[in-house]
Amino acid sequence: MASRGEDFRTIWLKPDDPTTVQIIDQRLLPHEYHVHDLRSWQDGLVAIRDMYVRGAPLIGATAAWSLYLAALSGANSEVAVREAAEALLKSRPTAVNLRWAVDRILALVDRAAPGTALAELILADAQAICDEDIEISRSIGTHGVALLEAISRKKSGATVNILTHCNAGSLATINWGTATAPIYFAQQRGIDVHVWVDETRPRNQGSQLTAWELAANDVPHTLIVDNAGGHLMQHGQVDIVITGTDRTTRCGDVANKIGTYLKALAAHDNDVPFYVALPSTTIDWNSRDGLTEIPIEQRDAAEVSVAYGVIDGKPVHVRTTAAGTPISNFAFDVTPARLVTGLITERGICEASEVGLLGLFPEMAAS
Amino acid sequence: MASRGEDFRTIWLKPDDPTTVQIIDQRLLPHEYHVHDLRSWQDGLVAIRDMYVRGAPLIGATAAWSLYLAALSGANSEVAVREAAEALLKSRPTAVNLRWAVDRILALVDRAAPGTALAELILADAQAICDEDIEISRSIGTHGVALLEAISRKKSGATVNILTHCNAGSLATINWGTATAPIYFAQQRGIDVHVWVDETRPRNQGSQLTAWELAANDVPHTLIVDNAGGHLMQHGQVDIVITGTDRTTRCGDVANKIGTYLKALAAHDNDVPFYVALPSTTIDWNSRDGLTEIPIEQRDAAEVSVAYGVIDGKPVHVRTTAAGTPISNFAFDVTPARLVTGLITERGICEASEVGLLGLFPEMAAS
Repeated sequence: MASRGEDFRTIWLKPDDPTTVQIIDQRLLPHEYHVHDLRSWQDGLVAIRDMYVRGAPLIGATAAWSLYLAALSGANSEVAVREAAEALLKSRPTAVNLRWAVDRILALVDRAAPGTALAELILADAQAICDEDIEISRSIGTHGVALLEAISRKKSGATVNILTHCNAGSLATINWGTATAPIYFAQQRGIDVHVWVDETRPRNQGSQLTAWELAANDVPHTLIVDNAGGHLMQHGQVDIVITGTDRTTRCGDVANKIGTYLKALAAHDNDVPFYVALPSTTIDWNSRDGLTEIPIEQRDAAEVSVAYGVIDGKPVHVRTTAAGTPISNFAFDVTPARLVTGLITERGICEASEVGLLGLFPEMAAS
Repeated sequence: MASRGEDFRTIWLKPDDPTTVQIIDQRLLPHEYHVHDLRSWQDGLVAIRDMYVRGAPLIGATAAWSLYLAALSGANSEVAVREAAEALLKSRPTAVNLRWAVDRILALVDRAAPGTALAELILADAQAICDEDIEISRSIGTHGVALLEAISRKKSGATVNILTHCNAGSLATINWGTATAPIYFAQQRGIDVHVWVDETRPRNQGSQLTAWELAANDVPHTLIVDNAGGHLMQHGQVDIVITGTDRTTRCGDVANKIGTYLKALAAHDNDVPFYVALPSTTIDWNSRDGLTEIPIEQRDAAEVSVAYGVIDGKPVHVRTTAAGTPISNFAFDVTPARLVTGLITERGICEASEVGLLGLFPEMAAS
């Protein structure tokens, strides 16, 4: 993040210990900042599944690093890597970057000459995935900031109010974020920005992660409950919505954190532009209809019934519901392309449609 | 509530102590059931303002009982009642029943012959307001249950899935509720019902009140986060939405708990009928355009940042956000009439429009 310097990363090889990968345990934010060691691919799987890390790009990167740890283990690196790959692919069903990263590493393994040191090979690629992700976020920022500049000009320099849902920030990527990159760039260019941060129930990624990183970067922001966005849009208090995505179909349907669809409906009803920022690694070129083709993960009821907070400075978990309350917990929903004003990718901004996406990624036309 | 018998009430005169009114301190549910004494009109004001009681009908009733307590106090009952009325009217700006109840009692005071014992007069009317409210809820239930019966028939007896937001239940009225009355009646008639309960951030009236009262009445239900309703509707898992309202305009715009508008948008987008259940006391006949004319209350940031739960069986409050996070907390939003399929009132079901409402309440045509 800007305030922590250009060198901030959400995942890295431990200095002086190349057998350990380190991450921020995001489950503990904002009340504790704890760096967590991944010493095996199983540690990586737990970190993904139990949401020490989250955010499609960071999930992908963590999977790549986990395969590096797999290659270090056991007598036969290749067997270990393939076993780890299979298990990792099952850990989170919705984010497509997970499959993308695993497939990329496996392709490398497939091409490797017999006797190649797989760990070294995968290490280099995991690092490359992270470096590329940072460049992708930068590009998304460069393209997206133009939208904020245009709104700022139209408002004669008055505050540009951006609403975002969940955390598509630095913490969801390696640095800069997807939805937040245009905001950080706007701030650097002196544009007066203010972010409405959706709390994002049930995991509170908005109140506990986005608010935390915006505060760390001195970006003006206000936390609201997920219910409030429609009211703000009805009263002209939102100029643009920018969210991330966990998977985007070839036709521009967008799977993202549960509740995104409701904000897209409100934006549409109030003529507020609704943009989705994404690295092309989150595009699932094999899927067209998001509503029928994207699997929606159901997660533990405890995410809804248990709140994470502090009492007298001490982090605690409390049950907020009555014991035994039946709970259902869908993690994502799908926003149909018709409600999306545009997609902000590393190659530019396009319409949320097959034509729009193929205009930026013509090499996928034949796929 | 049904499970507590027909005699259940949310507000009552203390047995053997006619100078004390009793309420359930709803702030403590579902973790503690505590009956709270109101011994002065100021106690009543605190109970309304600080949400010991909530729900438009119960707020109105509590105001009426508070005026009774005012009449018991001081040397000059009338002066005390008028002073209390003025203060009570300022305690919650959105619910129109508050003004309705206060105006009704003041009209009684205005008409009283000199020397009349005001306390006795107001006591009788506060009790009448409660009795009438119960009959109104029953009528809403009788009319509304027909909608659920029709869906049940259409589905050949399969489960009727109802989504509700906030608590428009027994706890929001004197008994039976508004949105819940049709559900309780359907259950009595053997219709297979299931309720999706919106958590309803920030105060969690869904997870902490609606889930509690549905469980107490053995109504099948599932708690979901506010973000989930759109996804469920996209996948055919909601047959009808029924909510309450804090104020309805003459033209059918509906002010209700923040987030109601988002559910109405999703219902509209998925052809799910969206009904609002209301006693006619929540109709503001003097207002037409909900978006510009209904004041939207902003409440304390702590409602968003602090969660109420239990640790080891002990009720506690925990701060879930980082200290110092800026927060905005709008309590209500307005759902335009165009998104409302119909209004369920004590006189029947009508279109959400002036024509619809005047069809049921022709005596208001000249007002």
